Amino acid sequence: VDRSRLEAFSDGVFAVAITLLVLNLAVAGPGTRLHPNPPLLHQLSHLWPALAAYVLSFFMIGIIWVNHHVLIRSIKVVDRTLLFLNLVLLLFVVLIPFATAIVADYGLSNSKDGRVAMVLYGLVFLGMSVGFGAIFEWSLHGDHRLQPLPPQAHWAARLRFVSGGGVYIIAIVAALFNSIVAFVVMALIAVYYIVERTPTPAATDSPDDGAPGD
Amino acid sequence: VDRSRLEAFSDGVFAVAITLLVLNLAVAGPGTRLHPNPPLLHQLSHLWPALAAYVLSFFMIGIIWVNHHVLIRSIKVVDRTLLFLNLVLLLFVVLIPFATAIVADYGLSNSKDGRVAMVLYGLVFLGMSVGFGAIFEWSLHGDHRLQPLPPQAHWAARLRFVSGGGVYIIAIVAALFNSIVAFVVMALIAVYYIVERTPTPAATDSPDDGAPGD
Amino acid sequence: VDRSRLEAFSDGVFAVAITLLVLNLAVAGPGTRLHPNPPLLHQLSHLWPALAAYVLSFFMIGIIWVNHHVLIRSIKVVDRTLLFLNLVLLLFVVLIPFATAIVADYGLSNSKDGRVAMVLYGLVFLGMSVGFGAIFEWSLHGDHRLQPLPPQAHWAARLRFVSGGGVYIIAIVAALFNSIVAFVVMALIAVYYIVERTPTPAATDSPDDGAPGD
Amino acid sequence: VDRSRLEAFSDGVFAVAITLLVLNLAVAGPGTRLHPNPPLLHQLSHLWPALAAYVLSFFMIGIIWVNHHVLIRSIKVVDRTLLFLNLVLLLFVVLIPFATAIVADYGLSNSKDGRVAMVLYGLVFLGMSVGFGAIFEWSLHGDHRLQPLPPQAHWAARLRFVSGGGVYIIAIVAALFNSIVAFVVMALIAVYYIVERTPTPAATDSPDDGAPGD
Repeated sequence: VDRSRLEAFSDGVFAVAITLLVLNLAVAGPGTRLHPNPPLLHQLSHLWPALAAYVLSFFMIGIIWVNHHVLIRSIKVVDRTLLFLNLVLLLFVVLIPFATAIVADYGLSNSKDGRVAMVLYGLVFLGMSVGFGAIFEWSLHGDHRLQPLPPQAHWAARLRFVSGGGVYIIAIVAALFNSIVAFVVMALIAVYYIVERTPTPAATDSPDDGAPGD
Repeated sequence: VDRSRLEAFSDGVFAVAITLLVLNLAVAGPGTRLHPNPPLLHQLSHLWPALAAYVLSFFMIGIIWVNHHVLIRSIKVVDRTLLFLNLVLLLFVVLIPFATAIVADYGLSNSKDGRVAMVLYGLVFLGMSVGFGAIFEWSLHGDHRLQPLPPQAHWAARLRFVSGGGVYIIAIVAALFNSIVAFVVMALIAVYYIVERTPTPAATDSPDDGAPGD
Repeated sequence: VDRSRLEAFSDGVFAVAITLLVLNLAVAGPGTRLHPNPPLLHQLSHLWPALAAYVLSFFMIGIIWVNHHVLIRSIKVVDRTLLFLNLVLLLFVVLIPFATAIVADYGLSNSKDGRVAMVLYGLVFLGMSVGFGAIFEWSLHGDHRLQPLPPQAHWAARLRFVSGGGVYIIAIVAALFNSIVAFVVMALIAVYYIVERTPTPAATDSPDDGAPGD
Repeated sequence: VDRSRLEAFSDGVFAVAITLLVLNLAVAGPGTRLHPNPPLLHQLSHLWPALAAYVLSFFMIGIIWVNHHVLIRSIKVVDRTLLFLNLVLLLFVVLIPFATAIVADYGLSNSKDGRVAMVLYGLVFLGMSVGFGAIFEWSLHGDHRLQPLPPQAHWAARLRFVSGGGVYIIAIVAALFNSIVAFVVMALIAVYYIVERTPTPAATDSPDDGAPGD
């Protein structure tokens, strides 16, 4: 199993997961004459939590996809450990539509259910982040990278990773108290990654900038 | 992240989105002896709005897919801005099965709900068109194209793009008054794109025809 | 849009459509204590029509996928006509899970509904066959094939195609009288294609055997 | 149809099947004021059988994907027999989300329904294993491998395969008596494959280790 197959399979999973998000968006049909459903405009106006969750999860998966490729691209050889760690990462990616559906149903009201939903949402991203970090950690050791990081750069690189996962922990803790605040924190993580961390092609080529793989 | 990966991921999203359209087509089973459902032929005869919406959305996604590739193919380098703009485009592509389901349920009767459904349908295509136009605009600047357009050709190229998005605005305005007319307008856009705008390989190779990328 | 992208997108649609077939297979959960559902074994024993329809549609899509690639592989250049014809073909491929669901629900009892279901099933395959034949016809003209067929071989090649579509017409006519017979006819078509018509690599390379593209 | 297309199509099916598993994970929405659903935390706490089934099926499909590539990679030429056998394998792969849904609903309580569910689950994996073994057997004969196995290595290689399928038979027999035990057996198979049998790149390159293809 070479790198391109690993990428093709992972790409397929990312693409299906990101598209399945749309299944969370649905309105009831007109209903019957005896039991009509609410007017469409009314139904749509109640769809905004589902739409907000859709947009956030969509960009989250998009960001993961970008980072996944940069990370995989930096790797020299695909072994069974990497295949397993990649499956762990994808396991959490595939859970995103599930967690998004729950956030759409419960998460954007600050009730007890809303806080539970948002904790779950954060846990899925945390799991994904841990899977990602595990691949990164694996890549640091045993001549797995095309351009090895010097040992003195390991901790700086890890710190950048831990900080990523750390923000999810903050979001989960926030969700215990206020689900809306937690959602905003996760949206800010997405905005941050889009604006700042998405690697440029230049960064990809120069391994000396600290952590090109995250 | 090189161009081929961007294409592979986008292709996956297009393929899943176009296939998910079929989930909007469904009939009830036979039901039980006590509560039988209507005869199958009767159910199928009520499926024509869903079928019309299916066919239109199918070709719309097909057209977007073609134009997406021609546009991406004209691009020299993939940077984080392009990745983000591409995600915005895909965000609207993935919304098409959702909007199609609503059109199937409500859109082809000229009721108030029907007009709301058709406005939503038009908005999704408009959003997609804006995402597409943003990628095109990005490609005009900063040495992003393999074969740069001369500055004097920029406005002609933009005009062709704006005209595309403009027709969606016309369809949305029409939908405020008559959902059937709006549907026909959008169907005509699809026919026009299939007959006239789908680029030939020759057009792809000759950048001097104005806007090969749209 | 080159040939490999056309293949990648079509492959994606084939793969999603063939996998969506599984959504037609479902049993109810245990139910509640007050309203328990029938025992699982009882539910599974009523699933055989859905399973038969699943297996047939699965191999049908598999056969189309094989033939699609052999046909596309024989083509020299991708133009807008081919893209459009390919979309027509895929439009019917995506309808297969829908028609399969109806056959699963109605088709394997020879009631009026069963015959309607089977006519619809046959019509979807006929439409797909017509889309396929249109691509083949297009490939015969205007220097579209890598290895052009000599004109005197055109009619023999067409005949092989028409015979394929013709058998679907026979199945549709049979479905008007007996849905089970029609299902068996279509199953025999699948078996025939698997055993006899799936092209060998040798046949693909030698265009002189009549119709390597079908 | 060359090897890369066979892989691309199979990859697509694997990716969609593994992602569809998430559809088995769902909770009810909040319900209405008059008929509220149970609290979210309560609903989630009843989701653990679905989650356990999700994780096991996810890794099972992941393992099959890895082994599929190693096996296909060892093959020299794609003929119609291989295409058909590959479809048989994929037919069972696509059934995994269906069987997983049943295990999620019934399988993890040792009732009669639970045992039926687990037998079905085992049968799907057995069918997949038989499809896999058939491709392997086909590869042994008639110059189908890039690096032919010496005849004296055939039986050792088969034994490794039969042992794999054999364990599924054990799991099925166990399921007749206790569904939980059967589930644990299948989970152990997955762990074993992840830890021991996932081929290393080195093993892939050296055909002399017995059965590099399984």
